[in-house]
Amino acid sequence: MEKSALQIARSAYQPKLPKALQGPVACKEGKPTESVGNQSDIKKLFPNTYGMPVIEFEAGEKKDFAPINVGVILSGGQAPGGHNVISGLFDGIKSINPDSKLYGFILGPGGLVDHKYIELTADIIDEYRNTGGFDIIGSGRTKLEEEWQFEKGITILRELGIKALVIIGGDDSNTNACVLAEYYAAKEYGVQVIGCPKTIDGDLKNEQIETSFGFDTACKTYSELIGNIQRDCNSARKYWHFIKLMGRSASHIALECALQCQPNICLVSEEVEEKNMSLDDVVKYIADAVALRAADGNNYGTVLIPEGLIEFIPAIKKLIAELNDVLATPEAKEIARNKQIDYVKSHISEENLKVFNSLPTDVASQLALDRDPHGNVQVSLIETEKLLSHMVADKLEKMKKAGQYDGKFATQHHFFGYEGRCAAPSNYDADYCYSLGFNASRLIANGKTGYMSIIKNTTAPAAEWIAGGVPITMMMNMEKRNGKMKPVIRKALVELDGAPFKYFASKRANWGRYTSYVYPGPIQYFGPTEVCDQSTITLKLEQGK
Amino acid sequence: MEKSALQIARSAYQPKLPKALQGPVACKEGKPTESVGNQSDIKKLFPNTYGMPVIEFEAGEKKDFAPINVGVILSGGQAPGGHNVISGLFDGIKSINPDSKLYGFILGPGGLVDHKYIELTADIIDEYRNTGGFDIIGSGRTKLEEEWQFEKGITILRELGIKALVIIGGDDSNTNACVLAEYYAAKEYGVQVIGCPKTIDGDLKNEQIETSFGFDTACKTYSELIGNIQRDCNSARKYWHFIKLMGRSASHIALECALQCQPNICLVSEEVEEKNMSLDDVVKYIADAVALRAADGNNYGTVLIPEGLIEFIPAIKKLIAELNDVLATPEAKEIARNKQIDYVKSHISEENLKVFNSLPTDVASQLALDRDPHGNVQVSLIETEKLLSHMVADKLEKMKKAGQYDGKFATQHHFFGYEGRCAAPSNYDADYCYSLGFNASRLIANGKTGYMSIIKNTTAPAAEWIAGGVPITMMMNMEKRNGKMKPVIRKALVELDGAPFKYFASKRANWGRYTSYVYPGPIQYFGPTEVCDQSTITLKLEQGK
Repeated sequence: MEKSALQIARSAYQPKLPKALQGPVACKEGKPTESVGNQSDIKKLFPNTYGMPVIEFEAGEKKDFAPINVGVILSGGQAPGGHNVISGLFDGIKSINPDSKLYGFILGPGGLVDHKYIELTADIIDEYRNTGGFDIIGSGRTKLEEEWQFEKGITILRELGIKALVIIGGDDSNTNACVLAEYYAAKEYGVQVIGCPKTIDGDLKNEQIETSFGFDTACKTYSELIGNIQRDCNSARKYWHFIKLMGRSASHIALECALQCQPNICLVSEEVEEKNMSLDDVVKYIADAVALRAADGNNYGTVLIPEGLIEFIPAIKKLIAELNDVLATPEAKEIARNKQIDYVKSHISEENLKVFNSLPTDVASQLALDRDPHGNVQVSLIETEKLLSHMVADKLEKMKKAGQYDGKFATQHHFFGYEGRCAAPSNYDADYCYSLGFNASRLIANGKTGYMSIIKNTTAPAAEWIAGGVPITMMMNMEKRNGKMKPVIRKALVELDGAPFKYFASKRANWGRYTSYVYPGPIQYFGPTEVCDQSTITLKLEQGK
Repeated sequence: MEKSALQIARSAYQPKLPKALQGPVACKEGKPTESVGNQSDIKKLFPNTYGMPVIEFEAGEKKDFAPINVGVILSGGQAPGGHNVISGLFDGIKSINPDSKLYGFILGPGGLVDHKYIELTADIIDEYRNTGGFDIIGSGRTKLEEEWQFEKGITILRELGIKALVIIGGDDSNTNACVLAEYYAAKEYGVQVIGCPKTIDGDLKNEQIETSFGFDTACKTYSELIGNIQRDCNSARKYWHFIKLMGRSASHIALECALQCQPNICLVSEEVEEKNMSLDDVVKYIADAVALRAADGNNYGTVLIPEGLIEFIPAIKKLIAELNDVLATPEAKEIARNKQIDYVKSHISEENLKVFNSLPTDVASQLALDRDPHGNVQVSLIETEKLLSHMVADKLEKMKKAGQYDGKFATQHHFFGYEGRCAAPSNYDADYCYSLGFNASRLIANGKTGYMSIIKNTTAPAAEWIAGGVPITMMMNMEKRNGKMKPVIRKALVELDGAPFKYFASKRANWGRYTSYVYPGPIQYFGPTEVCDQSTITLKLEQGK
């Protein structure tokens, strides 16, 4: 593996640990916990892993431990820092007993089911310290939710003498980690399961989890690019840049990037939904801002758009839901492609037909024609950034005729996602992830299962970070998924009364009209601490800093 | 202006200067020069600025200079480091005499003609040191080529007591700088004109100019992103990423990014032209590489595509040329939009019709319908990355039926341009640009006009860099532009027998088949020198390093 100069220099970085994890730990247990919702349902589903206390580690006495074999799985989309979770876990179990072994299951949860694994030795781990990506063992999207999978899993876990499994994933993967923990506990198989909170989307957070790992690095990478585009925008003064940012369900990424870069416009899906805005309302909102800047002679600007926006517009959400139903019938599947649009139009409600007809033709056809293998509308294929800019251009044309706008409107489009998911972790994510992994080894050594590894107080210097564990059941409630009620970890959307959004809302009129761009620049690993060791602005605001 | 933490920290960076510029200079003059081609034509057009010697500065004796007022213009597309050229120039003229003044013309060459300017004082300069963008005075694309513009210019230059004008631009802007220098010299207006070599495309280089500024930073920024995508690609193992890179005429950016990142495929326009490849040949080349990796079980990879590719495919180049002619006639302009494709088909040669019919429908319509204000085909609107990936998918489908391919082919598309043009300059570009600007002040103090500021030996430590000037006429030849022969600086395309391409060519079979990705990571400003202070690989290979 040929390495870049930065990768070589960066491999020597020793991530910081909370003080409590720097020596032997003692386990301070809190009171029994309840789930965030549907307590009796969750309790019934998780009799062995419900109600456990929140745990905090503090300095303890040195104990002798037998070697412990641990398995690790990367689940779902990549996020910066995954390799550091694994290296922290490796160093953690080796510090417990140097004869401990770490096994990595290949290409995600499927590796456990299919018995594909490698032993992660020191040589391998050292190649991946502080690097981005999940390529050390690969990731995958197989869902662990069926008993036969759990049983296939236990065979290989026993064969390898694995006593604990660490699953690194988002809300769904951690939910499944808990289901697995419960299953193995109920069967008394003697295998513990620990989760780690991963997702660049930032929507896996709550009272106990400050942030999911990777959110920091991904947002900083996107902000670097947005800042660069804003410099260009402010130099050339001739384009409006429409920039879509990854993140289907929550707008945390767009909001954090807005806080870092101060663009002219940032749409927040949760607000669009809350205000019951139509697509036309969104378009008008942008067009008005463009017109206002044009009045000052500024025919340029930047617009941040969360990838999931279109699904949050209530009218379109309803339309998509009905389209999914209408097009799922056996009858619909027999309709010739060139007749599908007519079929759709004659089979949806009057209200949805009106919305359907209001969409630009190509978007309407895409909604009616392109389906994923499950027969669902492929919302992710819609180029929202282009859709909006074209509709804004039309709107401005009308405003011009009505004497409400006088300017030029030329656009550029961007979509950032893959550019940031595998960036090498920032110091924050490198430290946070290493601590999460190291901390998981302490949860394991203390016999815990059904817990998520947590590190708190992360806007303070790393030494002051608080390490511990939270029962996964504590974060659960019941939600409808594919028509069935299921126990799931509640997703954290942007809260409109939360500090980050409120700060943004207090500034945006100013940022919208005047050029207030900030240029964060690329992630720095070696410079002064105010440049290299900062958390996201979202987290600072949430913690009142 | 609110600043990011990095911007604040970075503003304190003191760019390095060549040793010869660190004190008083003496001017060592070489022999009279000739232009690279059409010597007699160029000599006739530039009687006052032809044949001057190449200049090298060396340590000299301290002299007293009167204050000197200088004007500066940013011309054309943004490139990282423009602000450092200006701050170097500012520090340079102030070191000559603290009462010297620097004026910036606003929004490009048009500012000179329209008399829009600001005085660039120390306060302003200090806000922009080591930052990206051209926003200090803005840039523009007005071409300075008419006498009335030169005359308008001299009025304001006289009014402000400006004795020298520095034009920061690409090949065209430097050609025009020389025309202006010649004009003012012929008229004995007493205003010197000095050029600075700018363009991220890297195609302004020759025996005298090692590299144009901004190329280093832009390529490093794109390589960061390509590396991140490759990590993702190698972790998820399910997509082929088609990545288009800015650069219409030369493929230097794509080639440099390939040298930095080792993707599976990198297309080089100059090679496509040289080998007389058809679009189908290019598609087949990619499809074969995809099939080869699929045979090893690797259904993922990366393809780098230079923005200008399509125009280098000889058959398409011919087609575009004929389309431009055919559609430029008054008759053609009267044809209704829905009849234009038929019109085109019945008016182009049989050979071009064959090529036209071989194109995907949407690309064919785009070529036939969408025109720029000058009536030309808008090649830059063609999404070459999507065009190629769709055609590769079709080709693979056929190969699958013929038993020549067995795999999955899913794609993602990216286009990087605006993301890198205004990045804050790397240490290399920060030093190089500052030196270019500072050096320009020495050319001015030595009474030179029609020169370009040059800094050489830049793969060595900055102290060993060589500073001087090259007569712009020396780089010129006559070329046809818009039907007329004009004196122009010869563009530097990728040389297929040059060291960078030859190195790439020797490696690409291996990179194509096996996963050999390198992950350069983001530009670092504060770390170890092997990370922070490197030139491009292109330049190192060109200099045999």
